[in-house]
Amino acid sequence: MNKTEPRTLPGFMELLPQEQILFNQIKETIKNNYEKFGFLPLDTPVMEDSNVLLAKAGGETEKQIYRFTKGDNDLSLRFDLTVPLAKYVAKNYGELTFPFRRYQIGKVYRGERAQRGRYREFYQCDIDIIGDGELSIINDAELTKVIYDTFNELDFGKFTICINNRKILNGLFENFGQKESSTQIMRIIDKIEKIGKEKVIQELEELGIEKTNIEQIINFIEIDGTTDEKLDKLEKLNISNEVFVKGLQELKEVVKYIRYFNVPEDNFKIDLTIARGLDYYTGTVYETFLDDYKSLGSVCSGGRYENLAEYYTDKKLPGVGISIGLTRLFYQLNEINIIKADKKSIADVLIIPMVDNFEYIAKIQNELRNQGKNVQIYYEDKKIKTKFKYADKLQIPYVVVVGEDEVKNNTYTIKNMQTGEQKEISIWDGPFW
Amino acid sequence: MNKTEPRTLPGFMELLPQEQILFNQIKETIKNNYEKFGFLPLDTPVMEDSNVLLAKAGGETEKQIYRFTKGDNDLSLRFDLTVPLAKYVAKNYGELTFPFRRYQIGKVYRGERAQRGRYREFYQCDIDIIGDGELSIINDAELTKVIYDTFNELDFGKFTICINNRKILNGLFENFGQKESSTQIMRIIDKIEKIGKEKVIQELEELGIEKTNIEQIINFIEIDGTTDEKLDKLEKLNISNEVFVKGLQELKEVVKYIRYFNVPEDNFKIDLTIARGLDYYTGTVYETFLDDYKSLGSVCSGGRYENLAEYYTDKKLPGVGISIGLTRLFYQLNEINIIKADKKSIADVLIIPMVDNFEYIAKIQNELRNQGKNVQIYYEDKKIKTKFKYADKLQIPYVVVVGEDEVKNNTYTIKNMQTGEQKEISIWDGPFW
Repeated sequence: MNKTEPRTLPGFMELLPQEQILFNQIKETIKNNYEKFGFLPLDTPVMEDSNVLLAKAGGETEKQIYRFTKGDNDLSLRFDLTVPLAKYVAKNYGELTFPFRRYQIGKVYRGERAQRGRYREFYQCDIDIIGDGELSIINDAELTKVIYDTFNELDFGKFTICINNRKILNGLFENFGQKESSTQIMRIIDKIEKIGKEKVIQELEELGIEKTNIEQIINFIEIDGTTDEKLDKLEKLNISNEVFVKGLQELKEVVKYIRYFNVPEDNFKIDLTIARGLDYYTGTVYETFLDDYKSLGSVCSGGRYENLAEYYTDKKLPGVGISIGLTRLFYQLNEINIIKADKKSIADVLIIPMVDNFEYIAKIQNELRNQGKNVQIYYEDKKIKTKFKYADKLQIPYVVVVGEDEVKNNTYTIKNMQTGEQKEISIWDGPFW
Repeated sequence: MNKTEPRTLPGFMELLPQEQILFNQIKETIKNNYEKFGFLPLDTPVMEDSNVLLAKAGGETEKQIYRFTKGDNDLSLRFDLTVPLAKYVAKNYGELTFPFRRYQIGKVYRGERAQRGRYREFYQCDIDIIGDGELSIINDAELTKVIYDTFNELDFGKFTICINNRKILNGLFENFGQKESSTQIMRIIDKIEKIGKEKVIQELEELGIEKTNIEQIINFIEIDGTTDEKLDKLEKLNISNEVFVKGLQELKEVVKYIRYFNVPEDNFKIDLTIARGLDYYTGTVYETFLDDYKSLGSVCSGGRYENLAEYYTDKKLPGVGISIGLTRLFYQLNEINIIKADKKSIADVLIIPMVDNFEYIAKIQNELRNQGKNVQIYYEDKKIKTKFKYADKLQIPYVVVVGEDEVKNNTYTIKNMQTGEQKEISIWDGPFW
């Protein structure tokens, strides 16, 4: 028979089991932390009607969409989890209870140019809190706590959650008479970490901003010190622009509540350069960096928006959300080898039968399962060496051997595969664990 | 602004949060049971190169595929999890440890005609055990135990796992000189539950089977009694055909091990009519029925196959597997309202602040989270009635109220939303739970 080469598409992550176990643990930790705060699960279709999915899209995004027809349907694969959320909330408005807190962990699709570490299919892990007409600012602070708890448990080393408020930036530019260009200005500022101060100044000049204003912008984004010092310096700019004042007020509130939530002072900071290059955000914005691996970029970002679903409904639905791009993050962390695994194996125990007495083997298996362990039996007729090698390769931490002596004595012999230590356990003695 | 109607495609399941919580619990139970037996997680791409995915497909399947091009790529969405598994094992043969036990719970896509209860996007929950060249028959018995443990925990009422062996049927027809038509005959037999005996006889006649042979076939599939009586009657047919003898031998072995695994006699039976309408299976086959809802059809099916990946590799890779079609099953069970939920809410507790002292509120929240509870705080500025209604609608089982008295006394008042019982707890007294 002619064989087809069993290849996987470039840009699609497909892990070996050992890596998949790691990946799933991270996904599980994120999920558990999201649920800890009462976020409700959502699982929308991967595919949507193109008219619905692309109601807002355009430009770069639209080019990357996997779009096709089947029968009479014009279909697209989702490229993020926010648009499906907007659709869902608009569609089910009458059935939902607001504030509506949802998490969704799912795959999204973007036909990006294939390159190392870039994926065309990747997991996003999103939470959003949607208000009906209004939404308390305390929610913005709580998301910082969610990020803190999640990354604290993920244990990828020290991390910093950077926060800012879009209104501060918008107000500042308005104050300079640059309201029209504020989106463009913020896009430029947002790149300061990547391209450096000189290049930012140059791009601002190219935009036609006056020299004195550029100076003020740079002075502003270079405001430094502790969180309280920064808030103080912002105050002392004495900018009376209404938007600016509102933004500063919000930022102060957020900081106050972040402290109530007990997020350590070391793990968050105000970063006035963060704009998030999206027109979407209107208030608090977040980025999160692993301090020892800042070059990875933000590992968890998001912000506050005015209106989730304006393309679908007249209802005003303000919200705040964050997202973790898990597939890329996993790839990066796995490359630098800093993922710690609680469990490297699904099975806790491999039972290796040395006798034919399967009734006894099954009894031992039940016994160990009742103790809450994942137990696999090696059934194949192989040499003992092969059987132990199997446990070794799969990194199964314990092997239970059952031979004639064990059957006679109503025992099993359990071996710790890491220490080599072994012990004969009587099944009357109660749990080994 | 013109609004787009926020609709979801027909044939795509999109649940409200309360239903999604139920759905996820079932998915979680299935996953945990699969892991209990040491199956390794796998997560292959939803999309594959069409040449790879459709190496084997044809006919009805191919028509249902979501197939499209993007750039130079001819792409298809997976229509099951078996073909991606075959590709994966062939591709990673050198890296895997055999027997390779994997589970995959993921969405698959079939462009079926949309009708009630039929989905175009649906979850399959699969396990397979793949051997390298050979695979012990005990694995076939173990899958019965996996099905038993899973459906026992899912608690949808009494269920029966029906088993058969394809070799018995193949051998029988070979013995009748009907080897060529055996696939067709089995397809007809497989429908006996649906279309009845008379229609089966008629279809067999139309196939050109002789009357005496039809009689023998019917006598054979009507063999009844206990499991042991059936095995006995099969023995007494005195059929010397080699394939038949092998099949009967395998079936006996499987029954023997199923009993060792302690699957109750009530929960499994031999059903000689089960053929699974696929050319794929070569030995043990399974179907599982909910006794009180037989009309739902088989809720968990599968079987033993000779060769997983012959379209991709020369390696002989026999395997045995089962699959649960979760989306359809959930739809059906939800319709008849027999899903029991351990938890109807993600949050265990909703904290309702009656004071501005947020520092104290956050302390209570931490306290409760440290007790392992999922805790949400209601931040919005609403009437107390609205706040309680929120907990009610989301079916959150406990509400914690913090007012001035509680702050003064270092307490919180916890209310059981179902019983209405409430209690003031001192935070010095230790956990409420």
